[in-house]
Amino acid sequence: MQDIIEGLKAALSAPDNQELVMDSIAHLQPFDIAQVLLELERGEQQQFIEVLPLDLASEVLEYLEPEVQYGLIHHCNEERARALFGTLPSDATVDLLLAIHPRQAEVLLTWLPEEYRERIDTLMSFPEDTAGSLATVDYIAAREGWTVEKTLAHIRKVGRRAEIVSYIYVTNARGQLIDVVSLKEIIMASPHTKLSEIVANNPIVVDAHSDQEKAARILSQYDFLAIPVVDSSNRLVGVISVDDLVDVIQEEATEDIQKLGGSEPLIDSYLKTPVLTLFQKRVWWLLVLFFAEAITGNIMRHFEDALTEVIALSFFIPLLIDAGGNSGSQTVTTLVRALALGEIGVDDTLKALKKEMSTGILLGAVVGGAAYLRAATMGGVANSSLGIVVGISAFFIIAWASTVAAILPMTLHKLKVDPAIVSGPLITTLVDGVGILVYFSVAKLVLGIG
Amino acid sequence: MQDIIEGLKAALSAPDNQELVMDSIAHLQPFDIAQVLLELERGEQQQFIEVLPLDLASEVLEYLEPEVQYGLIHHCNEERARALFGTLPSDATVDLLLAIHPRQAEVLLTWLPEEYRERIDTLMSFPEDTAGSLATVDYIAAREGWTVEKTLAHIRKVGRRAEIVSYIYVTNARGQLIDVVSLKEIIMASPHTKLSEIVANNPIVVDAHSDQEKAARILSQYDFLAIPVVDSSNRLVGVISVDDLVDVIQEEATEDIQKLGGSEPLIDSYLKTPVLTLFQKRVWWLLVLFFAEAITGNIMRHFEDALTEVIALSFFIPLLIDAGGNSGSQTVTTLVRALALGEIGVDDTLKALKKEMSTGILLGAVVGGAAYLRAATMGGVANSSLGIVVGISAFFIIAWASTVAAILPMTLHKLKVDPAIVSGPLITTLVDGVGILVYFSVAKLVLGIG
Repeated sequence: MQDIIEGLKAALSAPDNQELVMDSIAHLQPFDIAQVLLELERGEQQQFIEVLPLDLASEVLEYLEPEVQYGLIHHCNEERARALFGTLPSDATVDLLLAIHPRQAEVLLTWLPEEYRERIDTLMSFPEDTAGSLATVDYIAAREGWTVEKTLAHIRKVGRRAEIVSYIYVTNARGQLIDVVSLKEIIMASPHTKLSEIVANNPIVVDAHSDQEKAARILSQYDFLAIPVVDSSNRLVGVISVDDLVDVIQEEATEDIQKLGGSEPLIDSYLKTPVLTLFQKRVWWLLVLFFAEAITGNIMRHFEDALTEVIALSFFIPLLIDAGGNSGSQTVTTLVRALALGEIGVDDTLKALKKEMSTGILLGAVVGGAAYLRAATMGGVANSSLGIVVGISAFFIIAWASTVAAILPMTLHKLKVDPAIVSGPLITTLVDGVGILVYFSVAKLVLGIG
Repeated sequence: MQDIIEGLKAALSAPDNQELVMDSIAHLQPFDIAQVLLELERGEQQQFIEVLPLDLASEVLEYLEPEVQYGLIHHCNEERARALFGTLPSDATVDLLLAIHPRQAEVLLTWLPEEYRERIDTLMSFPEDTAGSLATVDYIAAREGWTVEKTLAHIRKVGRRAEIVSYIYVTNARGQLIDVVSLKEIIMASPHTKLSEIVANNPIVVDAHSDQEKAARILSQYDFLAIPVVDSSNRLVGVISVDDLVDVIQEEATEDIQKLGGSEPLIDSYLKTPVLTLFQKRVWWLLVLFFAEAITGNIMRHFEDALTEVIALSFFIPLLIDAGGNSGSQTVTTLVRALALGEIGVDDTLKALKKEMSTGILLGAVVGGAAYLRAATMGGVANSSLGIVVGISAFFIIAWASTVAAILPMTLHKLKVDPAIVSGPLITTLVDGVGILVYFSVAKLVLGIG
């Protein structure tokens, strides 16, 4: 990689360099060329994108962030800028227009042919994270009455511009989607077959306003390469391709992991996120948890007398509150993921609750036993009654933590709030207070103190 | 859905039922038919799969688990069983053969034509989780010297059986991969063009023995619909399609989330996992963490005198150890995900460490300030020196937790151990001991006790 960058830099600095430049990136895929471009100085980047043939330059642009795309296009002469902007696929065009200043976007929009501009306008109108916001209009549509031969001729005519060619979208005169036919079916069929003879099932579609996660889930269930997006009248708005949904799947998992860990999700990749942003994404949750946890201290203060009488009780506090937090964290991560994958839904709340309570009781029994042994044999404080106190408390705390950690995400999901905000740290904090209460109550009862 | 199942059950119980059965599932996609099948009684499932036309039955089978597939195939008469087994795509065939008893697999293997059986044998030899284990041989290969016309005729001939048609794999006489050409390029080219004129770049490939995650990462970077898998001599072993890699991406994220939450990953989906399995996946980590945490109790015992003297010190223990655990959990989840996505690698260890330590110091300062206020104003124990002790301890504990939570996953990644085993609960436990040590040491110093 470093060699290629050096070679390219040398090529760019030579006069009349097009051939040298192309040689230096021979055999690279557009994605790799984009990575190489990002390693250049700003001026070199501009030189590079201007020297590349239009088609290749456009493919490379697709792998860059909208801000970088705009910078490069904006600094070309107008002819080249119009050409580059015009060859971007429609979903990239929408992302670019939404990322820049509305004034700048207005100028770029005037460069597009009127009919296409209207379609881009529609795509731009869908809120972020909806299926519509991910759709591209660079698909190939055909009419029911067409023959396979006519359809193939049409594909040859418009195919170069199309992003999605694996499927042909059969629509009626009102633009409503009738069915999706795969390119394979068309190639396998005899030339005079009409599309109406091939179409069969009701197509699987997703509504433009539904969540992008829903589109991702349908696509991964059905193993499709693309999914059509329709409006409320079943008119075809656009198509989402699998590669865009792979990005959605990765992003949603990343967000859930970061939330479950107790931070706000990051927007950029890790290395691009400055320390101050990391700080901002984390500090609020830490403070919220800190103030919630302060209640636990207040509860403890009520048991000051018991603590003074048997100071050894304090030795088991970290053990007990961590045991609760740990089992709560196990439950909440498992359920949040199962909800995200659609493995469980609102209807399964009772099932999940029963499962987690049963598991919590089993885990509580085992860890409670271990806690008994630990307290009953701990050097310096060895005491069978203390063992009973710690063991019983561990049992109740773990069973309680598993239950709370099951109820919360299921309830939030029902309320249509993202259950991933119930992080491991949040569960730990929420169960600590009750844990301390249980512990000292059992201690007072068994040891007859306080 | 319930209506369809009722309708189907009624249709199945009627004599001479093929037409009724087909009517009851009209307009359903194979995936949906598979879901309906799973809702039937075992005997009805068998009847249903035997009544379905062979092609549709085979497509439906693809969406079922290997054990279910085998049960259904095994109970058909031999002719139907051979036909059904023979139409399964090669990756499903491999999964099925690996899931059943080797004796049963041997019988099924004899049903396959010899040349195909050898290819299936090769695919079966790749260890689980490697790229080779995911590959299918149902792709379309062509030779460099072929014209577009000849290639299209070939696609028409073998295409029905192919799982992957979006790309044509151009190989030489020794089976080595020369390039990948998209079906779109072939359709757009004029009939007499030779493939050697279309092939251009070195194809992006993945080695059969490399990790499936690597294949998923390459595919999602390059936005491909499939990726070719080659052996060490660059011979084409098979192709992985994007839908199989979407499953890998989902599974890997699920595993990471469950591990980060402190459990062993589940193999089945949540509802299919019995309570005893959930228990087994969780109890070992809970016990390991419990015994590790026991050390914290031992450390506290050394400070018994200080505790006895200032009992209020104990009130802040939950607060302090949770603050450390929370910030550690934030760091570890962020880094483990960044590593999984390839956003950071071994070379970025120092960068990540510096970033997390700086963030930890900032977070420590803010939460330390809050801790000071809390302790200095807490009813009943309000005391500025105590505030200083708690504040300073919170600062050090958070900075320490962030550092440990950065070092551990980066080190494990370098040692090629999955960093996701460093869960939030594990970090909490690991930093608790030092946290308690810091807290009481600061207390002794500032309050002059113990």
